[in-house]
Parts: sequence; structure tokens; C-alpha cells
Amino acid sequence: MDLRINFHRLKEDVEALSRFGRDSKAGITRPSFSKADLEAREWLKEKIKDTGLILRQDGAGNIFGRIEGKGKTVMAGSHIDTVINGGMFDGSAGVLAALECLRRIKEEAVQLSKPLELATFTDEEGNLVGDFLGSRAFVNELNKEELEKGITQFGPSLKEILERTEFTIESILEAHKQRPEIDSYLELHIEQGETLETEDVSIGIVERIAGKRYRWCSFLGKAEHGGTTPLELRHDAFLGLSDFALKGTQLVATKYYGNMITVGKVRVSPGAFSIVPGLVEFSLDLRSGSKETLEEIENALLLLARDIASTRGLFFSSKLVDSTNPVAPSQRIIGVLKEKCEKLGYSHLLLPSGAGHDAQILASVADVGMIFIPCLDGISHSPEESIKWEDLEKGANLLLQVLLRLAS
Amino acid sequence: MDLRINFHRLKEDVEALSRFGRDSKAGITRPSFSKADLEAREWLKEKIKDTGLILRQDGAGNIFGRIEGKGKTVMAGSHIDTVINGGMFDGSAGVLAALECLRRIKEEAVQLSKPLELATFTDEEGNLVGDFLGSRAFVNELNKEELEKGITQFGPSLKEILERTEFTIESILEAHKQRPEIDSYLELHIEQGETLETEDVSIGIVERIAGKRYRWCSFLGKAEHGGTTPLELRHDAFLGLSDFALKGTQLVATKYYGNMITVGKVRVSPGAFSIVPGLVEFSLDLRSGSKETLEEIENALLLLARDIASTRGLFFSSKLVDSTNPVAPSQRIIGVLKEKCEKLGYSHLLLPSGAGHDAQILASVADVGMIFIPCLDGISHSPEESIKWEDLEKGANLLLQVLLRLAS
Repeated sequence: MDLRINFHRLKEDVEALSRFGRDSKAGITRPSFSKADLEAREWLKEKIKDTGLILRQDGAGNIFGRIEGKGKTVMAGSHIDTVINGGMFDGSAGVLAALECLRRIKEEAVQLSKPLELATFTDEEGNLVGDFLGSRAFVNELNKEELEKGITQFGPSLKEILERTEFTIESILEAHKQRPEIDSYLELHIEQGETLETEDVSIGIVERIAGKRYRWCSFLGKAEHGGTTPLELRHDAFLGLSDFALKGTQLVATKYYGNMITVGKVRVSPGAFSIVPGLVEFSLDLRSGSKETLEEIENALLLLARDIASTRGLFFSSKLVDSTNPVAPSQRIIGVLKEKCEKLGYSHLLLPSGAGHDAQILASVADVGMIFIPCLDGISHSPEESIKWEDLEKGANLLLQVLLRLAS
Repeated sequence: MDLRINFHRLKEDVEALSRFGRDSKAGITRPSFSKADLEAREWLKEKIKDTGLILRQDGAGNIFGRIEGKGKTVMAGSHIDTVINGGMFDGSAGVLAALECLRRIKEEAVQLSKPLELATFTDEEGNLVGDFLGSRAFVNELNKEELEKGITQFGPSLKEILERTEFTIESILEAHKQRPEIDSYLELHIEQGETLETEDVSIGIVERIAGKRYRWCSFLGKAEHGGTTPLELRHDAFLGLSDFALKGTQLVATKYYGNMITVGKVRVSPGAFSIVPGLVEFSLDLRSGSKETLEEIENALLLLARDIASTRGLFFSSKLVDSTNPVAPSQRIIGVLKEKCEKLGYSHLLLPSGAGHDAQILASVADVGMIFIPCLDGISHSPEESIKWEDLEKGANLLLQVLLRLAS
């Protein structure tokens, strides 16, 4: 069926949603269940109702807009939450492209066989307890202890944050019971890398989504006076971390080329000009497309950290705070994506995703497929996040064609 | 004169003062003008009055207890403020030893020629704007801009903190006008190093106080997605700092052995698991007994930082936020200290001070002398700070003998 999306309307929607959570640094700050997010949710629900979709919401705050049908559901979506000071396309582009697809199907009264559903998942960015709260609730991968602890972020606990909503830890844990049987899940997203831009290609078809390990680590040394403790007698925890960050990065860059290591969050205590750091706590983010490689890198780095601690008279400790395994999208869907790109005349290539996505979580209950569109200089999670609008138009048209096929 | 201090009373005073500002981590948190410090000040003023000394206080909150006499003043003291989670002897031991000396002189109605004064200087630890606020006000080394900016510490501005006191930025800047002419300034202090303990000696006579340079520095890189940005394309500001901290420490430890470098305070932005650090800000604390060496080290490190920035595609910047030059105590006073140690039969040695002290600031208006007593394992600025009480008794008796000589 030669249906096309209404690009003008989609662009208006993206711009309208970007007005919720505008911050003072020209970005968007819209973590799930913030005031801005709650307002954005109301806006989206109105859009879903105006489109004539059946609005539903589960106990984790995941929002759906459904066109009824028979059999398993074909789903498309992403997320509308952002990181602190993030951009306007990460997540939102996928949700609104899916909305536009369903709106066109509704408008044209296209008769499909399977039910179709738009989905937006809560807290993909992990501002509350860890990444993918909503999609993990959806597939029943959460446990109560984890939700009560709130492990990776500062600030109030999840329980306190939920007080301003209609949700509870219990309702989140029960959310999966409201899940229909899913045939497939499609997600359009900005690439968050530079491959498509460099290759001058409009569409990326994701062939692998990297898994990750998040660890919260520490080196414990001894806080001493920086004016009186000779350098050779110090147990400087920060120098331990410096050594680890450099050698760890070097190790991954050489022995495990193509995989990722990031030390992104660091706290140094006691944290004064004249005191040798007695304690550093830091995050370790490891990513790989292969579960075996990920485990190998993790083990090598833990060994390295313990070696450095022992050489420098420090104690190293770490705990796993978040973990997802690599996922391969469905070959069936990759096949349809390729076929439709060719039919539409869109340049495309297969590529891996270094970033995590809700699609990765949905893979345990559905065939998944991901459409990437280029973003300027690979920048995301930043006010500078930008796209060429015609790429979004192409991505949304491709999504529409694939949904029509999968649901027919 | 064969006068001795009342050790029992001195110990009681040290223990009593240590009860102001006890914190939940078994240490003392008593920064100047905190609630605990304000209470400790009232306690000290009562002690000064009970001792029959003339109480006075200047516009910087420096507190004095005076015995009148003719000519220039002989002064002894230190400070009663502490670092966050500090110990009970750093500063307090010197103030209370001086109090005990003057109390014994009063009790015995010893007739001296020169005026004698106990002094405690505000914010030696630099919790407000920089080290030595009180003694720098006393010698007229402050400027208004510096006080209004509040450059080295987090938290409220000096102006806001002063609102809970009787002092203002103006009164601090005027404090030096209330200064009598000073003949000499004596300060007893814990060593904050391990030399005396290692050598099994009770008294250290300071022959040089190290100078320091405090710089607040930054590496600016690019905040990018840690899951999608290849390691070789990153501009990771934290790896720049890691490289600098290791190479800088190595440089000082080899080429400038015996001098000090500390990176004690670090902020990493944006500070998330999955985002490559785009900015690090950090403190650089350099110390040396030689002004020339200090300048040479500073220049070498700035060059190193710029080299690293250029290699790693970062921008380096730094500003000087505090600086004191090395100081040599008075040979006249060193002579008296040696002579009195020998007379009292106390083991002693000459040694440098790596830490800064108010004595160093007073050196611009008086002959200064410093008595060090050993502290356990060289630990200070920590709840574990500890001394052998008999060393404090010896130090205070030495201080008393030297004051009697200098004021006679």
C-alpha cells in the first residue's frame, strides 16, 4: 500500500513536544515523572485520543494507543523522557513517528489484520533507578528490592518520586500483567553515532544492540595532609583511579577494539585542596555487541583494578548496578526493513547500536527491529542534538510501510 | 625563672574545647563562624576573662587575651577552627598551650617588661575564602575583591556566612588597624608529619615553612555518548586529568624530590554513567620550602598540562587562587628555643614545615618561631589525629620558658 506520512504534522508534533521541559541551558530536561514529563504525558494522551486510538496506560506509566485487531500485537514506539539537559529527538522522534503512522492508518481507514499499538516507555534514560524502567516492567524483569533501593542515581528515592504520580512500586511490578501478546516491536531512533552521517546514508537498520555492564566502584586509600605527607608514602585513591582509567581505556582500545569503556561519574573524598584523596568512587560503563566479550572485558578490568590497588596500597571494591545483554534484532524484520528501503529508494546500511534501547528489552517478548536516522556529528544527550528533517520523514515512511506489512 | 605549666589543667582545656563541633564520624567539624565555632569562641572568651587577661577581638574575629606591658607585644597562639571532620589538636593545642602559659604567668604575678598576648586567628583552615583569613587580615594582606568572590570553597559566600556574626567584609579589611606593634609571635603546633615520631624526639624547632600555590584548573573536552563514541574519537576530559595527575606526580617525585603536589578536589561534568566527561575541574596544591623551586614546579606543571591538552584534543585553563611564599623563622627565636630545650632536657631537632601556619603570615610583621610536637603516624586533618600527652606538656613548658625570656 502506497501510504505516506504527513511530514508537516509530524514536524509540528516534534516541535510541540520539545517545549515541555525546556531548561536554562537551551536543552530539554524531562526525566520521567518530573513536572515537565507529567505535562508531556497529558499532551501525548490528548494526541492519542484525538487520533482515535484506544488509550491505555499500565502500572509502570507506559502509555499505549491501540488500533484493535486479531492475534498478536504489532507495536511501535520509543520513549519521551530525556537525560538532564538533553535534546529534542532522542526517544521523542520514535514515539511521534509511530503516532503519525497510526494516525495515517486511522485516517485512511486501512483494514489490517493484527492489532497495532503505539508505545512510549517510562524512564528509558534511567533517571530513576536504572535504564529502561518502563520496558523492563513491561517484560517483567524488575524486582522489588532494586526499585526500593534506587541504586544508580542521586536524589530522592523512586518511592518519593512516585508520590506525585498515580503509580506505586507495586503497580510497576504488576505492569507486565497488562501486556498483550506481542508479535513485533519497531523502534525508530536517532543513531547517536556518526556512521550514517559519514557514509551519507539516510537509514540505518540495526543488526545488533550492544549489551552493557554498569559498575559502581571505589578505591580506598588514606586521607592525609598534602603539605606534609611525602609523595612516596601516600595512599592516594585518586592516583589509583587515574592509573586505572588510563590503563583500562588502553586495554579496551587495543585488546578489545570496537568495544566501549567510560568512567563518567567520579566523587573524590574528602575533596579539599590540601588533603590527599582517601576515597574515590566512580562509575564504570562497559559495552559490547558480544556477551562473551563483555564478560571478558569486565573480568580483565576487575583484575587490573585489583592489581593497581595492590601496587598502590589501596583497596578496590565494586558492585554491579545495572546490566543488559546484547541483543540481535529479528532477521524477519531486518528482511522487511531492507525490502521496504529498496522499494522506497532510501539509501540504507546495516549497523550495530552502541547505545541501549527499549527494543533490546522488548526482544525477550517480541521480534524487534530498529530504524536509525542520522544525527548531526553523532551528538545526542545534549542541547546540540540535531537531525536533517528529511531523514526523519524517510524513517517515518519506512516505519509506516513496515507496520502495514507486519500487521497485515 | 623555673616556672612550669599545670599540665592537668591544659589537658582538661584541650578535652573541653574538643567537645565543640563533634561530628557523626567521630571527628570535629568546626569551621570558622559555624555554630560550633561560635560556641567555642564564647567558651574561649570566658576562659580568657577567668584568667584575668584583657579580652579583645578585632574586626576579623581574631581573639586576643593580653597582659599589659611596655613596648612591642610578644604574642603566642594558633587557631581553633578545624577542617571538616578534623582532629582535636591541630590549632587548638597551640592556643590552649599559650592560654596555660599566660595563666601561669598571671597566677604567679610574674613581672615582665613587654606586653604578652594570646592570639587565636580566624579560619586558618581556609573554609571560607582561602587559608589564613584571620592572620592575613591581621597583617593587612587581604583585598575586598577576594573576600567578595569566595574563590576556593563551595557553599555560601563569605558575606552570607558573616551575617550570623558581628563581622563584615569591611570590618575584616579594617582589622589590621587594631594590631599592636608585635615583637615576636610563637606558635606551638602538631607536626602533621612523621619526622619527630620516627626520630623519637619530643620537640621540633621549625627552621623553614613551605610556601604554596593553589590553582583551580580545568580540562575542557566534549561530552558524548559513552555507548556510541569510539574511544579513539573521544575528547575525554577525565582521561586528560588522569594523565596529568600521574605524570605531574611523577615529575615532582623525581625531578623535584621532597616537594609536594596534591590533586585533592575534583568535579567531573556532566557526571553520568553513560556520558564521556566533557569537563573536569580540579585543585592543584604545590608546596616547596624554596620560592624559586615552587615557581619552577608550577611552570613545569602548567607546561605539562598544556601538552596533555594538546595531545588529547582538550583545552586547559587554570587560575591562581591562593599563594604564600616560604618563610624562615627568626634566627633569634630559633636560638632561644634551642637554648631552652637544652636547659629543660628535651630532645629536639630542627625541621621544615610542609604545612602552612599563621606564623608564616605573621612573619611579615614580627619575628616568628614555631614549636612542633609529634603526632601519631603523622596524621592530621582527621578524627584519628592523636598525640602523646607528655609531648604537649613539654611543648607548653618550652613555650612558657621562651615567652618569659622574650617578654622580659
